[in-house]
Amino acid sequence: MELKTQTIDLASHRAQFPALADRYYFNYGGQGPLANSTLNKISENFGKIESLGVFSRAANAWDVAESNLTRATIADQLKAQASNITLTESTTAGCNIALWSVDWQPGDHLLISDCEHPGIIGIADQLKQRFGIEVSFFSLQAYLDQGTDAILATIEQNLRSHTRMIAISHICWNTGHVMPLKQISQLCHAHDVLVMVDAAQSVGVLPLDLPDCEADFYAFTGHKWWCGPLGVGGLYVRDQAFDQALPTYIGWRGIKDCQLPEPGTQPEITWQQDGQKFEIASTSYPLYGALREAIAYANTWGSQAQRYDRICKLSKWLWQELGKLPKINLVRQTPPDSGLIAFTIKEKIPSQLMTELEEKENILLRSLNNPDCLRVSIHYLTTQSELEQLLAICSELAS
Amino acid sequence: MELKTQTIDLASHRAQFPALADRYYFNYGGQGPLANSTLNKISENFGKIESLGVFSRAANAWDVAESNLTRATIADQLKAQASNITLTESTTAGCNIALWSVDWQPGDHLLISDCEHPGIIGIADQLKQRFGIEVSFFSLQAYLDQGTDAILATIEQNLRSHTRMIAISHICWNTGHVMPLKQISQLCHAHDVLVMVDAAQSVGVLPLDLPDCEADFYAFTGHKWWCGPLGVGGLYVRDQAFDQALPTYIGWRGIKDCQLPEPGTQPEITWQQDGQKFEIASTSYPLYGALREAIAYANTWGSQAQRYDRICKLSKWLWQELGKLPKINLVRQTPPDSGLIAFTIKEKIPSQLMTELEEKENILLRSLNNPDCLRVSIHYLTTQSELEQLLAICSELAS
Repeated sequence: MELKTQTIDLASHRAQFPALADRYYFNYGGQGPLANSTLNKISENFGKIESLGVFSRAANAWDVAESNLTRATIADQLKAQASNITLTESTTAGCNIALWSVDWQPGDHLLISDCEHPGIIGIADQLKQRFGIEVSFFSLQAYLDQGTDAILATIEQNLRSHTRMIAISHICWNTGHVMPLKQISQLCHAHDVLVMVDAAQSVGVLPLDLPDCEADFYAFTGHKWWCGPLGVGGLYVRDQAFDQALPTYIGWRGIKDCQLPEPGTQPEITWQQDGQKFEIASTSYPLYGALREAIAYANTWGSQAQRYDRICKLSKWLWQELGKLPKINLVRQTPPDSGLIAFTIKEKIPSQLMTELEEKENILLRSLNNPDCLRVSIHYLTTQSELEQLLAICSELAS
Repeated sequence: MELKTQTIDLASHRAQFPALADRYYFNYGGQGPLANSTLNKISENFGKIESLGVFSRAANAWDVAESNLTRATIADQLKAQASNITLTESTTAGCNIALWSVDWQPGDHLLISDCEHPGIIGIADQLKQRFGIEVSFFSLQAYLDQGTDAILATIEQNLRSHTRMIAISHICWNTGHVMPLKQISQLCHAHDVLVMVDAAQSVGVLPLDLPDCEADFYAFTGHKWWCGPLGVGGLYVRDQAFDQALPTYIGWRGIKDCQLPEPGTQPEITWQQDGQKFEIASTSYPLYGALREAIAYANTWGSQAQRYDRICKLSKWLWQELGKLPKINLVRQTPPDSGLIAFTIKEKIPSQLMTELEEKENILLRSLNNPDCLRVSIHYLTTQSELEQLLAICSELAS
């Protein structure tokens, strides 16, 4: 009876997402759909600024209030303080803030796992060129199925005496493994190494307590698992890392006070002493409330722990069933602890399969390059019948 | 009869901006109001992504097409090529890209005018700290009324042998003077100095031919004089400056190809060979079309040259009339060549006046700190009767 009630609730809850009405959607890790209330909030808020006078004291106060409310709402979801939150445009924007925030010196070392997104690799390339640092990539993917001890061991083996930062994901975007973040942070901190986390795939999935994770920088977006609008993300900066973290892209939002210089003198700048320090300038304030609306709407369907539990149950079911098909290779050999499942079908090219599935079957998933595979994203909004349809098609393809 | 027709056209044209209906609006230099068609396009485009499947091949192709169309539309307005345009979040974001793009070496010099926005000063502070460069501020404000020769002379006097870049505005945000950009560029290029232009107040005001201006970087926003949505701006990078310009905040949009590294090897990255090189990652693609709509709507009311002509005529009228009032000090002593007019009223504190005018008179303008003054923004949407109302109130205050 409990299950039945929950099923009915989910159906009506899901019905508020127009994009989910007529397709099998498995791309939450790329972008989440918007609920009607989120879509409505976008229009409402753009109109609100016009009604408040555009660039008026009232409208500018509204922009500030929206920013504050949004940092507070995000912080609440992460068990952090609003002062730890920087509003950004995307996960990648937050990763940039973190990676460029170090006062890099020639010979410093940046350690990156071999599971990171190309954006991280691009940033590292420039840090090397600009500051003469060393960058190395360590083998993580090979150890993912072996568990925490093996993961910690490969990290420790690859730390150097001058390592200043490690870049790692909380949930690997390609394989879906959840990293033991607290243990990684403690290991790295014991070596005076800052921990920079790409959290694109974990925020909106895991029940999070960021202070307990002890990571220094945690970069995420609202438009994937949180089903918020494109263009709003955030960065959590741990208190202990804040003072040393330098701002890079700079604008009036990060500046508390700037004594304008007379010619011949140097200006005196005071930075904001909270997450605003890393914010830049004007942005789409109307979207902030839409992200809050998306978060609030998700919270009408259980707690994050309950939603995560549902994600894991659905994922495990699909992983087990796919594993029974002879021509399917699952990328991970251990049961999934997130909503991402990566696999290949023998003799099929993943990128071609992705196109065929979308065009012929109305099934939306994505292909990856490393490893070369298909990736399915399972959300709490995903239904058992969606999984069954996916499994049926995979079964045909793998026969 | 011509004038009458134009007046009628403007009234119906203006009527499409809901924010202009019930206030005297003089803050275009802060933020422009949105036309109904622009507001509608925002909602339409957010809905469009949902109908295309959110993270589907169709939706992703739409994102790319929107980005391409928007670079092309912006380029067309600036007489540039689409390949010269980077889409950004704001003017300040573009200034950051430009100022951080130099392969700064210790001892290099960055020259900044004393009329620049605090954001520029903040960036310079960090460039000094990170790369050990010299930053100096030269006296421009004192020479603005003296014209081109005096402006060029103060720049030339302040260039050093190791100056690599100058940061200057096309239209000074505080005084409204239009800088002789082509001559400045030619002077600076003769000294191997890159020219970085803050164009927050010029795009949407001046008829522009950026290749003819010869500036290397030209950073602007859509949400001020173009009356586009908050959160979309752009950066023009001159062909001759492109190859040397390094990307700083980096993401998948700027990376053409990234060979993922095996542990122990280094990745090979190929950057995009157009303005995308400096773009980062996911953003609010739905807003791009809204900016194009705003630009298209403005273009239904004359050409940019005609709109600029109207701005100058209105500005000159107000400047002349304010100049007749005994207690008013105009910041500039020469007739305005832009829509910005700065002034003070004797014995009145500008920031207090701003509040009073908004609260009591429904007149929206802003106060500045340097110089300490009020600033009025006059747009082609501004009406003669708005100016008369402003003048009447100023006349009372100055009596």
